[in-house]
Amino acid sequence: MTKPVRENYREDVAGRANVEETPELAAYYDELERFDTAALWTVANKIEPWEPKSASVPVLWRYADLRDHVLRSIELVAPEKAGRRVIYLNNPGRRDVAAACGWLYSGLQVMKPGEVASAHAHSASALRFIMEGSGAYTIVDGHKMTLGENDFVLTPNGTWHEHGVEASGSPCIWQDGLDIPLVNSLEANFYAVHPDLKQAVTYAVDDASLTWGAPGLQPAGSDWKKAYSPLLKYEWEPTYEALSKYAKATDGSPFDGVLMNYVNPQTGGPVMQTIGAAMQMLRPGEKTRAHRHTGCSIYQVAKGEGYSIIDGRRFDWKRHDIFCVPAWAFHEHGNASDTDDACLFNFNDLPVMQALGLYREEAFGENAGHQPVM
Amino acid sequence: MTKPVRENYREDVAGRANVEETPELAAYYDELERFDTAALWTVANKIEPWEPKSASVPVLWRYADLRDHVLRSIELVAPEKAGRRVIYLNNPGRRDVAAACGWLYSGLQVMKPGEVASAHAHSASALRFIMEGSGAYTIVDGHKMTLGENDFVLTPNGTWHEHGVEASGSPCIWQDGLDIPLVNSLEANFYAVHPDLKQAVTYAVDDASLTWGAPGLQPAGSDWKKAYSPLLKYEWEPTYEALSKYAKATDGSPFDGVLMNYVNPQTGGPVMQTIGAAMQMLRPGEKTRAHRHTGCSIYQVAKGEGYSIIDGRRFDWKRHDIFCVPAWAFHEHGNASDTDDACLFNFNDLPVMQALGLYREEAFGENAGHQPVM
Amino acid sequence: MTKPVRENYREDVAGRANVEETPELAAYYDELERFDTAALWTVANKIEPWEPKSASVPVLWRYADLRDHVLRSIELVAPEKAGRRVIYLNNPGRRDVAAACGWLYSGLQVMKPGEVASAHAHSASALRFIMEGSGAYTIVDGHKMTLGENDFVLTPNGTWHEHGVEASGSPCIWQDGLDIPLVNSLEANFYAVHPDLKQAVTYAVDDASLTWGAPGLQPAGSDWKKAYSPLLKYEWEPTYEALSKYAKATDGSPFDGVLMNYVNPQTGGPVMQTIGAAMQMLRPGEKTRAHRHTGCSIYQVAKGEGYSIIDGRRFDWKRHDIFCVPAWAFHEHGNASDTDDACLFNFNDLPVMQALGLYREEAFGENAGHQPVM
Amino acid sequence: MTKPVRENYREDVAGRANVEETPELAAYYDELERFDTAALWTVANKIEPWEPKSASVPVLWRYADLRDHVLRSIELVAPEKAGRRVIYLNNPGRRDVAAACGWLYSGLQVMKPGEVASAHAHSASALRFIMEGSGAYTIVDGHKMTLGENDFVLTPNGTWHEHGVEASGSPCIWQDGLDIPLVNSLEANFYAVHPDLKQAVTYAVDDASLTWGAPGLQPAGSDWKKAYSPLLKYEWEPTYEALSKYAKATDGSPFDGVLMNYVNPQTGGPVMQTIGAAMQMLRPGEKTRAHRHTGCSIYQVAKGEGYSIIDGRRFDWKRHDIFCVPAWAFHEHGNASDTDDACLFNFNDLPVMQALGLYREEAFGENAGHQPVM
Ligand SMILES: [Fe+2]
Ligand SMILES: [Fe+2]
Ligand SMILES: [Fe+2]
Ligand SMILES: [Fe+2]
Ligand SMILES: [Fe+2]
Ligand SMILES: [Fe+2]
Ligand SMILES: [Fe+2]
Ligand SMILES: [Fe+2]
Repeated sequence: MTKPVRENYREDVAGRANVEETPELAAYYDELERFDTAALWTVANKIEPWEPKSASVPVLWRYADLRDHVLRSIELVAPEKAGRRVIYLNNPGRRDVAAACGWLYSGLQVMKPGEVASAHAHSASALRFIMEGSGAYTIVDGHKMTLGENDFVLTPNGTWHEHGVEASGSPCIWQDGLDIPLVNSLEANFYAVHPDLKQAVTYAVDDASLTWGAPGLQPAGSDWKKAYSPLLKYEWEPTYEALSKYAKATDGSPFDGVLMNYVNPQTGGPVMQTIGAAMQMLRPGEKTRAHRHTGCSIYQVAKGEGYSIIDGRRFDWKRHDIFCVPAWAFHEHGNASDTDDACLFNFNDLPVMQALGLYREEAFGENAGHQPVM
Repeated sequence: MTKPVRENYREDVAGRANVEETPELAAYYDELERFDTAALWTVANKIEPWEPKSASVPVLWRYADLRDHVLRSIELVAPEKAGRRVIYLNNPGRRDVAAACGWLYSGLQVMKPGEVASAHAHSASALRFIMEGSGAYTIVDGHKMTLGENDFVLTPNGTWHEHGVEASGSPCIWQDGLDIPLVNSLEANFYAVHPDLKQAVTYAVDDASLTWGAPGLQPAGSDWKKAYSPLLKYEWEPTYEALSKYAKATDGSPFDGVLMNYVNPQTGGPVMQTIGAAMQMLRPGEKTRAHRHTGCSIYQVAKGEGYSIIDGRRFDWKRHDIFCVPAWAFHEHGNASDTDDACLFNFNDLPVMQALGLYREEAFGENAGHQPVM
Repeated sequence: MTKPVRENYREDVAGRANVEETPELAAYYDELERFDTAALWTVANKIEPWEPKSASVPVLWRYADLRDHVLRSIELVAPEKAGRRVIYLNNPGRRDVAAACGWLYSGLQVMKPGEVASAHAHSASALRFIMEGSGAYTIVDGHKMTLGENDFVLTPNGTWHEHGVEASGSPCIWQDGLDIPLVNSLEANFYAVHPDLKQAVTYAVDDASLTWGAPGLQPAGSDWKKAYSPLLKYEWEPTYEALSKYAKATDGSPFDGVLMNYVNPQTGGPVMQTIGAAMQMLRPGEKTRAHRHTGCSIYQVAKGEGYSIIDGRRFDWKRHDIFCVPAWAFHEHGNASDTDDACLFNFNDLPVMQALGLYREEAFGENAGHQPVM
Repeated sequence: MTKPVRENYREDVAGRANVEETPELAAYYDELERFDTAALWTVANKIEPWEPKSASVPVLWRYADLRDHVLRSIELVAPEKAGRRVIYLNNPGRRDVAAACGWLYSGLQVMKPGEVASAHAHSASALRFIMEGSGAYTIVDGHKMTLGENDFVLTPNGTWHEHGVEASGSPCIWQDGLDIPLVNSLEANFYAVHPDLKQAVTYAVDDASLTWGAPGLQPAGSDWKKAYSPLLKYEWEPTYEALSKYAKATDGSPFDGVLMNYVNPQTGGPVMQTIGAAMQMLRPGEKTRAHRHTGCSIYQVAKGEGYSIIDGRRFDWKRHDIFCVPAWAFHEHGNASDTDDACLFNFNDLPVMQALGLYREEAFGENAGHQPVM
């Protein structure tokens, strides 16, 4: 039987490993293996790369492709059996961890009027972005939130939560976003089913918005100590209005147009410790310059149509389409319309990069900031 | 000539000073004086009181009393001569430091259409609360803010600022609030006149509101590092809407009804380091319970009418009236109407109490929380 | 009877108040008084000065002058009657508030072997710096600390504390430092006598040093949440060693030589919220340059001899002498010896200046940084 | 050709996925694959486990086994070719990422007198714990640190660093600890070789210790803004002294005996953003109770001998041995001596768990806290 060839990553650069394998070394390596050890110089160049090369690939998931399949799951599986009726986005480079990109998971969930998913809790942090339908709601630790199109809602790490659609509503589809792969990789994921499979609504409906939804105003006696935003729900209408106003006061970012981050109103920090989110407006005709940074993002088109160029590949998108930008991949965006704005929602792991000191950013320096398209 | 009697604060309580003066001690005290020293036990009970007794007295300044006098200053002094045409509130217990209460200053300023006050900067932090008139504006470090009734605007420590009324406006009256007495007492007040007596508007008009005025959304790339709120202006309409919404989700505070603090949207902290501000709604018929705390507050009636009982004295107030609650004075508020809400704006030195670890609070325990009225 | 002349601070500078009093205005001012108001323009230039002018004066308290008087108090008053046997430093400009400088109080306390002061608590923060004697100790919330010469110990805001000298010790003198005047001025001072007049020692003696006294090491499971340093005691020996080491790695500050701040080891912040402290070494022959800043300091000579020039006045000091530097007064220090170092301890209100955004600093620009001496 | 069986993780528990595969579903799954999607219910139970199950296995690396192999590398490879002469610890469950445990890498490095490794920088954070030899040093951004046995030194994310042994020293062996696997997994690792292959020493030797090594004292004018400890080196002698002192003031932790965390003296936080470290003393005869928590640790025996029981397996260790505790594995430690203490150094990813809100801990509840040993 052939012995598998041992890894040996050599580079002929001062300061890098460059050791030729000899029979003596081979014997030495064999011995090291016996003690659960190995020689660093055989793998140093692999594990200390010059710069990151993401395992994820850029993907565009077209809603036109997916919508029927998502709806079909209504007939195929009952929520009681499936837990949740979700078609998840499976990045070709990340199938082993069921990630849409990097360590982020995403899926499209569908619910019929009158359906309720059972209440549960987990260490993974989650969000939903509502795509279509009426009557959707989420309950988080007793706070019930009503949800409309393009609303964005949190179900943070450790909270009891459940989703449903009112009997008076219509079939609802939303995008789920979670850090399940990250929390699994960190070996810190716990899951619990609520003892009653459902929780009581113990606050006024939409109380989080009523209490925390005012700019620059904080409820008296607030002693919110949790590590996520007490606002929980970010509605589309005030978000779009905010972008429209901000557009009047800013030149925008060369890389992102008019972008606002969803934040915790009590700290100005990210909505959850492990997942950030933002909404950006590309003004009519706007074409941004390319940059790249650590951290990956999953975008959903909230309004309009356009394209993004990601590591030299062009993806044309329209409303409800989803695409991802892997870590350290150059990306730039363009609005296809000269008269209407386009809006991109995204969620990302930038809070992880920031918290761990790993954020790094770089502009694409050539060609006025625009990548050559393959 | 009679030697003034030496202070000697005696208390017959274990652990307190209680030293009888003798001729020998008197001689000793005289000697100590020669070296700029003195015996602690003669003053210990004075400088270490059992609890605070404010030098300020509760005062109600009725707008009906003051308005004509304020307007009359238009004829009496020109802004070029007066600097600012302000009638300040002079607490009978704090005339030596020109304070309205505690270490807080307040005054009523009036400006005619077309007038502009010269630009300047100081270490004292300032705010304005607009009482009447149209066309008022404030410029802070190049940010111009348009102002309407019940709007609240900051001119923080160290900023270049100037106020004016557009030629197309009407005579405007607003309340100024500053910590001038505090900053003077801390021997840290600096003043500078702008070299040009006016500053350029270098941002879009009302850009602070356009940029920071959205709940839970933060402009991309924000790197606001200053110790005060970038929002600068807090408008009445969204504030009243916020209280109305919050009222649907809260039982309110037993002492304050429905109260929201104006905060720095990037930190959740107070609007400035030395001055906090809040707006509270007393619901129809609401009568709060009494409490007291360190820190003092200056209230302005933004809407409705009612009364406050402060250390056993009743003050009946209506729109535009101003009153103060000294430190550690019991206070409770009542809405006189059973059909309309009443709103009280206040600014205070609570951020100082918090920053220095001196905040303390106590409910009035008897009589269901209501003070006997003198 | 003559009407007292009304204040009217005029300056002939654009942007400053400069209103001549007229009979009409005088009548107007009288009317304003009736409503507890006044015209700002009469006092604006007073309450908004161009820069601070401290009410405190520089003072040097010589230990040679004070020591005998302090010791004599042992015969004159019993601790049971005096509470504490303290001769306090009474700045000629601050006698009304019994301050040594600014809003800081200081005194020299003496205790005989076997004496114990009764346990109490107050909102003022306190520190002691041991000057002479053996056997002194302080108990803070059940933590007993043994104290030697030049040791520095905290008794923070709100803690139960008591001082004593072991029967086996010798008469002890120490300097007390407190923010009593500040806390009184902020109308936030509370005082309580311990119900038993003494407290139990509930931890190992010197446990704070045993637990928190290691550089860069934190006790496991520490959940210290209080706003002051858990170290409580800062001993002289490691402090002097620290300065000696730091001197090998730094050029020092041009204004302070080799200075280290006493800090809270869990936060790196000041030892208490309202009082900071530092020890500085002037190397043999070192003469610093002058600067000034907001905040005031009270120095004690811990080692050596030299001089300080404060607002142009020279003060020569030696061990145990105490002197103060008022806010915004220029100051520079000189070591009188060319062979030995000199060390100055100081405590100050700089944490207040920092917390409230009022710190400002300026170098003396002329004459190579040295003030002309009056 | 046989189609591989599709994953389908079923659980017969309310709230969990339990969908039987049917031909219709199989066809549906095939279609989903075409669009880079899949059905969540087939993998939900896998990616949302009830609790973590670490991929790492507990391993004890005996120094007696490794030392000769490490020394032999001196003859086998030159540092110029190998980059660094390191034998790394290869957890049987983590060979794909070259981790010793979880996402942490560790190796044993050896250097002869006069050798110097080339200067470089990377996004991974690193530490060294010196095991034997004299004359070792590390240079970090111009700060040179001399190193002795059991000293612990940081080379944080982004710093230029190089290691060497003085010509006058002896062969040195140390343990390297890095988060290379973590930073790679987060796709954020950058590597750079110093342009000169070596850096200048621009500070006094050991200046970090001279400047930051004093308990409760901070150098004046310090404006350290970096996200890691300015102390950089933690020497064994003061660490052991600190544990000995702390042992006099604490009962210790039931799970860890007398444990102190190495911290950033300016913040009280972990030494680096992604790696924490601690030293613990097991007192003579001490046997701790078992607990488990998220986050993994790599231990090195700094002193004495004893054993640890990890998920029911017993590992007997003595000085220089290294062992790892995977995430969520129960662990307890015992000192084998009844007369001498034993000390364990460990580094871990607990700062990552804390920063991301993923820390969770649980005591072993049965059998008085002691696991049955397999
Ligand atoms: Fe969930
Ligand atoms: Fe980007
Ligand atoms: Fe002003
Ligand atoms: Fe109140
Ligand atoms: Fe006291
Ligand atoms: Fe100074
Ligand atoms: Fe390295
Ligand atoms: Fe543990």
